[in-house]
Order: sequence, then C-alpha cells, then structure tokens
Amino acid sequence: MAPAEETSKFCEAYPMKGGDGPNSYANNSTYQRGVVDAAKELLSKAIAEKLDIDILLSSNSFQIADLGCSVGPNTFFAVQNIVEAAKFKFQSQGQDSQVPEFQVFFNDHTPNDFNMLFKSLPQNRRYYAVGVPGSFYGRIFPNASIHFVHSSYAIQWLSSVPKVVVDKTSPAWNKGRIHYLNSPEEVARAYEAQYTEDMECFLHARAQEIVYGGLMVLTVPGRPNGSSHSHSSINMSFQLLGSALMDLARKGGVSEEKVDSFNIPIYCMSSQELEAAVERNGSFSIESMENLPHVSVDDTVSKSQLFAAHMRAGMEGLVKQKFGEEILDELFDLFRKKFEEAPFFFETGKTISFLCVLRRKGNGLCLYHN
Amino acid sequence: MAPAEETSKFCEAYPMKGGDGPNSYANNSTYQRGVVDAAKELLSKAIAEKLDIDILLSSNSFQIADLGCSVGPNTFFAVQNIVEAAKFKFQSQGQDSQVPEFQVFFNDHTPNDFNMLFKSLPQNRRYYAVGVPGSFYGRIFPNASIHFVHSSYAIQWLSSVPKVVVDKTSPAWNKGRIHYLNSPEEVARAYEAQYTEDMECFLHARAQEIVYGGLMVLTVPGRPNGSSHSHSSINMSFQLLGSALMDLARKGGVSEEKVDSFNIPIYCMSSQELEAAVERNGSFSIESMENLPHVSVDDTVSKSQLFAAHMRAGMEGLVKQKFGEEILDELFDLFRKKFEEAPFFFETGKTISFLCVLRRKGNGLCLYHN
Repeated sequence: MAPAEETSKFCEAYPMKGGDGPNSYANNSTYQRGVVDAAKELLSKAIAEKLDIDILLSSNSFQIADLGCSVGPNTFFAVQNIVEAAKFKFQSQGQDSQVPEFQVFFNDHTPNDFNMLFKSLPQNRRYYAVGVPGSFYGRIFPNASIHFVHSSYAIQWLSSVPKVVVDKTSPAWNKGRIHYLNSPEEVARAYEAQYTEDMECFLHARAQEIVYGGLMVLTVPGRPNGSSHSHSSINMSFQLLGSALMDLARKGGVSEEKVDSFNIPIYCMSSQELEAAVERNGSFSIESMENLPHVSVDDTVSKSQLFAAHMRAGMEGLVKQKFGEEILDELFDLFRKKFEEAPFFFETGKTISFLCVLRRKGNGLCLYHN
Repeated sequence: MAPAEETSKFCEAYPMKGGDGPNSYANNSTYQRGVVDAAKELLSKAIAEKLDIDILLSSNSFQIADLGCSVGPNTFFAVQNIVEAAKFKFQSQGQDSQVPEFQVFFNDHTPNDFNMLFKSLPQNRRYYAVGVPGSFYGRIFPNASIHFVHSSYAIQWLSSVPKVVVDKTSPAWNKGRIHYLNSPEEVARAYEAQYTEDMECFLHARAQEIVYGGLMVLTVPGRPNGSSHSHSSINMSFQLLGSALMDLARKGGVSEEKVDSFNIPIYCMSSQELEAAVERNGSFSIESMENLPHVSVDDTVSKSQLFAAHMRAGMEGLVKQKFGEEILDELFDLFRKKFEEAPFFFETGKTISFLCVLRRKGNGLCLYHN
C-alpha cells in the first residue's frame, strides 16, 4: 500500500487558476475545450471498440478517473462523453439491464480549487462524483479499483523541475531562460530524463490501480515524431514568455536571479517517446495512438490576445508563486506583444495533440492483481 | 440509479465555517473533538466485536465513509481510529497478510470547504482519501460500494426547515422563535415529522450503498429517553439564541419578519426515536446503542465564552445567510451574556450523546444487492 507521505514529497503542485474570474482557468480554457471536442469522437470509438465489459463482471459499478481534471468545465464534457459511450457499449451488446452505475473520481493536485469543481458539477449528471486530491505521479487509488482512466492535457506537466537546471554548478544550469529551448544541450537532456522518470512513476501507479483489461486514454499536447524540440510551438511560446521575463528583469521589474531559478516543468513529448515509456513499463498494451484533428479556436478576439489569455490561465499560478502578483499584468501583456511580433511562430511552430489508448495487460477474469 | 438532481433539490446546505480563522469550525470544535475521543473506545469495541471481515472477501480494499465530515480535524481522528481498529481486527484473526488497503470517502454538503479539508489531510495517513460532495439524505455512493459508514454529530441536522413552520397561515407558524422550544405544539410536531421523513431517506440511501453485513456507526447528540424537548440543553441553547435575535430585532438591528422566517433545522432526538426509525426502515439490525460518557471541555477559558464560540462556529453560516455578516459579533456576544445569566441552564438542561451501531442485514456472501 502506498503511504501518502511517499508520494507527496517528490511532487510539486501547479494548480490552474481557480475561481471564475476573468483570468480564471474556467474562463480561459477554450483551447483545451477544443481538444476535448476533437478527442470526443476518438474517445467514443475507443470505448466502442476496445472496452471489454467483462471487466465489470465482479463489480456492480463502473469506476472512472479523470486525472488532472482542473476545475471544470472541460472535465465534465469529457466524463459525460465517456459515460455515454460506455452505456452505449452495454446497450449495443444487448446488456441494457446490466448498465452499471458510474462513479467518477475527479483528480488533481491538492491545491486545486475543488470547491469550485464541486459547485460546478452538472446538475443532471448520471454518475456519483468524487474528488481525489494528490499527484498522479504517485498512488491515489486502491489496488485494482479503477476501470477507466482518462487524462487530457495533464501528463505534459512534470512532477517537478529537474534539479540540475537550477544548480549553478551544473552544466545543465538554465541561466536566463525558463524552459529548454535554445538552452545548453544538457538542459533538454535533464527535462527528458525527468519525463522518463515521471512517466514510469505514472504508469507504475496506474498499473496497480487499473483492473486487468481496463483502459487508459491519454490526450497529450506534443510534437510530431522526428521533429526537434525547437519546432514545437509549445516550447516556442515558453521561450517568448522567458524572453518577456528577462525584459522585465532588465528593467528591474524582477530579479534576474529569480528568473535564473525559475523553470517551467512541462515536457513536450512525441508519441514515440510515450510509446517507448509504455513499452519499458510493460504493464499496458498500446491499443491505438492517433493525432487529433487541428483545433481551431474562436476568432472573435485576436489570436494573440486569446493565446496570451490561455498562457496566463495556465501559467499564472506558477509565475505568481515565484514573482508575486504584481508582475502578472505587465508580463502577460509583454508576452502578447512578443507573440504579435513573431510572424515566424505559426510558420515554423508545430503543435500536435495525440490520443493514446492503453489497456492494462492481464487476464480480465482475474481482477485483483498484486 | 439515483440521479443527482433528485437528491440535490430537497436538501439545503449548512456548512460549518471553513478556513482556519479565529471563528472557524476547525478552531472551535473542541467539544465535537471531545465527542470523538469519548466515542473512540466504543467505536473500537464495535469494530472488534461486530466487524465481519468476510464482507471483504470479494473486494481488495476497505471502503469507509465519514458522513458530515466538515473540514477536519475531528474527522481525521475518527477515521484514523476506524482504520487502526479494522487493521487490528484482521491481525487478531491471524489475517496479517490480508489486511486490505483503505479508501476513505469524506462527505459533506457541496458548499463545505473541501479545499481546507484536503489541505489538512494528515501527511502520514495510511489510506486513500477522497471527497464526496452532496447531502447524505440522498444517494451519494454506488450500490453496495461501502463497507463501513461513520457519522458523528451530523444527523441531527435536518434536510431542511419544515415548510409549515415558516407558513404564516399554518398553526405551526413559528413566529418570534427560531426553534421548537416554547413554541406551539404544532411546531415540535412539524420538526418530528421532518426528522422521521429525513431519517427514512438516510437509512434507505445507506441500505443501498452499504454491503450486506457492513456496519454503520452513528454518534448523535440527543436527549435522554423519556425526557421532554424542553429538558434538552441543545434546545435550550437555541432558545437563548432566538431570544438574542429577538432582542436585536427590538433594537432594530434585524427585521422581526426575518426572525419569524428563520428556523434552525436541527432535531434533538432520543435513542428510542432513532431505534424506531431503524425498525421502520427494516434494512439494518441494531447491534448496540450506548450513551457516551459526559464530555468535559477545556476550562482555561470561561464556559460561556467557549459555549458561545462553539455555537458561533456551528451556526454562523446559517445566520449569515439570513441576516448578513454585520450582526454576527453582536448576536453571539448577546448570546454569551444570556447564557451567563441563565443559571438554570446546567441544572435543568440535559445533553447526552449516544453511539449507535447498525449492521446492514442480508447474507454477507451475497454482496451485491439490488
């Protein structure tokens, strides 16, 4: 059994901005919503084709977990989709009377705004809702207690910034930057190593928690296979944010030393890297791996404004923790301007999202593994 | 299956004061903590003598629910006690290797401060923690998914104020009072009827959620069997609070009409009334019913101050919702004074707490009931 203190030590928490204010995640996650919509069809297909309803034989409810759920509403759309697709699967197999009750475990870091999540739960939901605080890089559920895991736009967050990139004596010290683009080779290597370690923790924990035959669907923002880090528009946008921070430092708005010690714990993986991690772990089979169609966002506001708002909703917590609240408006305004002045951005930068369906290996009739 | 909207409609939420400020429930629940301590021995005994570990045969984790958990820390002491006693039960039966993993469902109304609850979770806990928003007068868990239910000082809260007591045309209209003491007979009858209805909802929902053979332990503040409502010090204290509110109304601090429409949805039951409800419901056997030893509280502060602080922590949310934040200091100060001037209080008033152990009837080997 996993004691709580073991997992809580090595994880840092970067919750999305809570509440429902103008800069909140809830009001600035339309891009992520677009991802949920784009993933909907693939998710339904995965359930229709891959869900083995026999994994429920010895249970009378269907346990679903959404990992890194944030505060909603995106998580509710995803969960609704899963519940409907699973119901349809039972019905299409003539098991109408066997449609189980659903229990949904909404998971995110402990500092996540669960109060807001709970208040926003859809009134007409047909599932029992539960909140689970804690890092998904450790154990958060009992052995073999979950039938279906979903996680959208969450596992790109590392458990922490790699230690060496804030170590002045290390060749991987990331002075003057906040991410690994245009950094010494060692910085990207350190991020890669952290990703590898984290993903093994993630898969190891899920292998214990998911019943044999259970599914895990991961939607991941990443870079195309074979492309370098410098062609990922996610990485490019962090470079712009870092450059905006350094501008502030030069003007005396923030201390340069603070910028040196600030790094964004996000790794932009390729689907091949994810596949390699799954194969190293050995507990899951890869059932499918598909790129999502390109997500287009509402263009009633300018692209740069929207982009800056999304960046702010996602990064504000992290930036505030390090630099204080005062710099937020100026920083993200500067970021927006830099973005507007970067015509190369959409020409060279590539973002893809992919959806990966994994199945817990093992005999579906022997549900309780050790 | 119970749709969420059905249960959320008929329930009102009265969360304890969140956060950890000077008037918070977390810092003003030493009395309730005393109850938890007093109940500890009885609870451990109940688990040692009554827990049938065979109910876990087809499950590999032990699911515990604490209903009406508030924000902690009392819930953590109670849960820790249950987990330890259950472990000891397995070990004492030579089943060391079979000690299950524990998963604890912390339940309270949706507006409860779950963020604070999650932040206060003990670091060294040996269980998986989960938060469950929703009224325990409706379904909150899937069918047969819980092995052990605990609830301390929660089921005295009714699902809502009986409608007739705020109906000006009803003989049960409770003008000038906020509870049923010294009210027309019809008011107490309305509270009794609400209690009866609520308790049936409570037991009906739990009968579906708890596995056959599973236990439910309820700790309840009540009045002695055979004593009248007017001898309950809980009821007497609400009378004092009502009288303080009427004083404010007379001084123009609050509208008298508002006081007329304000009532406290708490019913002070006797253990016989609880037994009768359990028997009417029919799904549970009463394994034991015992009074708790008298709880003495820290006397480094004056009794009246402590009493007023506890009353405020429990009632502030309710009062604020109706009358606004401005009156709180004056009201509870007035309450404290009235309490000091009521020498009869501890002479005639009686509070008892009792602990009731129920077992879900049914064949322990047939876990999944419909």
